Amino acid sequence: MEIICVGNELLIGKTLNTNAHWLARRVTSLGIMVKRITVVGDDVDEIANALLEALQQKPRFIITTGGLGPTFDDKTLEGVAKALNCKLKVNRKALKMVKEKYEAYVKAGKLEKFELTPPRVKMAKLPEEAEPLPNPVGTAPGIMIDVGKTLLIALPGVPREMEAIFEESVAFLLKREAGEVMFLEASIYADNIMESTLAPLIDQAMHDNPYVYIKSHPKGEEKKPHLEIHFSTTAKDSKTARERLEKAALQLSELLEKNGGKIKSRSEFF
Amino acid sequence: MEIICVGNELLIGKTLNTNAHWLARRVTSLGIMVKRITVVGDDVDEIANALLEALQQKPRFIITTGGLGPTFDDKTLEGVAKALNCKLKVNRKALKMVKEKYEAYVKAGKLEKFELTPPRVKMAKLPEEAEPLPNPVGTAPGIMIDVGKTLLIALPGVPREMEAIFEESVAFLLKREAGEVMFLEASIYADNIMESTLAPLIDQAMHDNPYVYIKSHPKGEEKKPHLEIHFSTTAKDSKTARERLEKAALQLSELLEKNGGKIKSRSEFF
Repeated sequence: MEIICVGNELLIGKTLNTNAHWLARRVTSLGIMVKRITVVGDDVDEIANALLEALQQKPRFIITTGGLGPTFDDKTLEGVAKALNCKLKVNRKALKMVKEKYEAYVKAGKLEKFELTPPRVKMAKLPEEAEPLPNPVGTAPGIMIDVGKTLLIALPGVPREMEAIFEESVAFLLKREAGEVMFLEASIYADNIMESTLAPLIDQAMHDNPYVYIKSHPKGEEKKPHLEIHFSTTAKDSKTARERLEKAALQLSELLEKNGGKIKSRSEFF
Repeated sequence: MEIICVGNELLIGKTLNTNAHWLARRVTSLGIMVKRITVVGDDVDEIANALLEALQQKPRFIITTGGLGPTFDDKTLEGVAKALNCKLKVNRKALKMVKEKYEAYVKAGKLEKFELTPPRVKMAKLPEEAEPLPNPVGTAPGIMIDVGKTLLIALPGVPREMEAIFEESVAFLLKREAGEVMFLEASIYADNIMESTLAPLIDQAMHDNPYVYIKSHPKGEEKKPHLEIHFSTTAKDSKTARERLEKAALQLSELLEKNGGKIKSRSEFF
């Protein structure tokens, strides 16, 4: 899986990319691995290049966020059309979705009257062959389009809209693809040991626990250093995943204490 | 400028990528434009590919974060060496930096005794021709290496170490490159107008203010929607930048109110 986030606000550091974080976490929890996250600006060529670069890796899924709205700088679908060498045209289903949203806004008194202005029609102009995905909490539909063996999914940049479309129309597809795969993670927190002392101990524990990935993260202030040691694994069922993590954490805890380290706490799981 | 962040923890959504956010903001404030941010895992090939892909764009700078520490999965420098087709070898200056750090830890009573173990030497194994950058708050030095017209800079993943090396050894290089360029931004917050109504007004204001970039961001809850309208510009001096933003914001505010919108607040600047 590749994630592509579109938006100048991400490149100027105005907005913290919580969408990539949320998606990465959610996708991982469904058993699909994220290989790369790319952030590009509101520029048709940059978007198209990022898509072509991602498609070359032949991932099963590409998810984009951002750039689906009504304004001139919402350019993701233009970028998709350019990358796929196809045209944008008004999609009847998408136009119906957009119309219904605005009619509901008028009903709710949020909008005086509804005109199908060009910026509104824009949100329904999809690459040919794209399927619109209903937006339960906003206006712009998401889209989904098969590109060879890759399913390309474009979601809006507003976090709650992105999340809502993902949960309603995307999550089950990923789950189906992953099958009964379980991702599990947990951490222990240690004091009194340096990362460079811990390094060979992690090597040994990873060698003895080939399905468990272990990574240390320095935390805390310089004067009061401590380490988080993060364990993760993917397995066919949660019992197996749990047993693997427990075995690896037990071994590493022992090694750590033999080398003078002190375990301060463990995440809930252990 | 391209930013490449290295770390599995970013791809599984364990860690929010605040480093990319901080760097993007800081680099932009110095007058350098970030074109792309890429996140890859702790994998030599993935790191090397991301670097080669970025180098192809011939940016003036590439900054990487993460993967410089002592553990087996700190692979950024291996990735750099692979991309540049050079060797890693112990850099005398870097080794001296690492040694002095550990000697200081011993002095401070944080470490019983100091041995130059392989994980510690690892932090001083740099690509040939790389310059180490002192780490004022941690152990692993950053590095800097000329690749044709691109200056490649690798910083650690621990935020306070990344920020400290950036401020001490990188910021002035970027500032020198950018010259007397000033990036300025400000926002106004509006109610009672939909993004699709606003879209053509922004088009007009951007047309009339060619140096100002204007982007709308939907905010708030569905039941209480409002819009942030963000103005930014880059100019040779702050007076020019300020005047440009003021003119554009004034024009758009008038257009907005003519179309029934209400301005709720403005960011401090206006």
